[in-house]
Amino acid sequence: MEKAVRHFQEELESLLARLLEMGGLAEDRLRQAVDGLVSRKTSLIAKVRDGDEPVNRLHVEIDDRCFRLLALHQPMATDLRAIVAAVKINTDLERVGDLAVNIAEAAERYAAHPPVKKLIDIPLMGGIAQAMLHDALDAFVRRDTRLAQQVLNEDDRLDNLKTQVFRELLTCMLQDPTTVEPALDLILISRHLERIGDHATNIAEDVIFMVSAQDVRHHGASS
Amino acid sequence: MEKAVRHFQEELESLLARLLEMGGLAEDRLRQAVDGLVSRKTSLIAKVRDGDEPVNRLHVEIDDRCFRLLALHQPMATDLRAIVAAVKINTDLERVGDLAVNIAEAAERYAAHPPVKKLIDIPLMGGIAQAMLHDALDAFVRRDTRLAQQVLNEDDRLDNLKTQVFRELLTCMLQDPTTVEPALDLILISRHLERIGDHATNIAEDVIFMVSAQDVRHHGASS
Repeated sequence: MEKAVRHFQEELESLLARLLEMGGLAEDRLRQAVDGLVSRKTSLIAKVRDGDEPVNRLHVEIDDRCFRLLALHQPMATDLRAIVAAVKINTDLERVGDLAVNIAEAAERYAAHPPVKKLIDIPLMGGIAQAMLHDALDAFVRRDTRLAQQVLNEDDRLDNLKTQVFRELLTCMLQDPTTVEPALDLILISRHLERIGDHATNIAEDVIFMVSAQDVRHHGASS
Repeated sequence: MEKAVRHFQEELESLLARLLEMGGLAEDRLRQAVDGLVSRKTSLIAKVRDGDEPVNRLHVEIDDRCFRLLALHQPMATDLRAIVAAVKINTDLERVGDLAVNIAEAAERYAAHPPVKKLIDIPLMGGIAQAMLHDALDAFVRRDTRLAQQVLNEDDRLDNLKTQVFRELLTCMLQDPTTVEPALDLILISRHLERIGDHATNIAEDVIFMVSAQDVRHHGASS
């Protein structure tokens, strides 16, 4: 029995390591997509656009690991909550990988036009989204609800920047119709970044639920 | 022991019933959001915009039911797969509820401008997304992989319509700058509808995995 417990803990740790690896990959792809947009380096953009396979492969593998841990070890309480959280976080990270592809696709179209403006807020959004993702996963591994709460607080900054980007680009489009197409792609990119922040928020909420068994989602609904 | 098994089956069935209820709610909200957009009925739009609470409440309740089933009954094989699928489907449905809110918010802004064009493709997209969602949940409850496969096939139609809507509205924006703002909202709405289709696709993939224990996601990655 003790051997089984040790085996389970090893499997669980190896699951967490794979999840962190996937998080690192998703972060890298996000950063490269935004770097590609800003630098207009089409080779970097194409690398992100076509490079989703490692994330997808990890997604399938992690799902499989979670399922096997649940099936073979029938974990209880904290461990069970950690594995259910891992199933959800895995889904979030896979979507982040997809969103990096979407950003790269829009960046590719954007690079085919003259630049609309100097990009300041969008790289800022990219940095915030990346940090949120990183902190959310860190909070998961360290079971750190305070850090998870910080991630939740960051989401408003991202939303405000998205609104600001939207207003600014709308003005460009109205003043100069030749900017309509590229400005549209920047608007889409800012929304993809906001959604990455939403996924980080989901992860942070799962961490808080996992640690405290307290459901922080839908405050309005549960009160 | 037999009593425990019966109890488990009852709990599982009641979980599925709640999940279907949530699916029905999400479908209703999607349909109302698109109806509100087309009819420009601001009261209907506001109802969708402010009415996310029941979906959110069900989301928390279903998550809790899944967790309790896993913790108390330690189900094996098929039942375990069904509950893990329910955890994921629950997340997808909650996002569909959020997307209905996003559609309503864009519809509200859209209704403040003169109409850009007669809306044909967007209601068509709404109908397809709704049918996909309905069929995916139906496939889940009936464990019907053929129906799930049909849902996967529908996703291309939605993608093609989204591309068509985008091109058409881009032309409007370039020809007449006064259409920029409302056309942008229609583009966003078409993307929200596409994402609802993606969630239906996720559900269909989970059904196929649940029934056949075969992972149909990321064909490229697993070959």
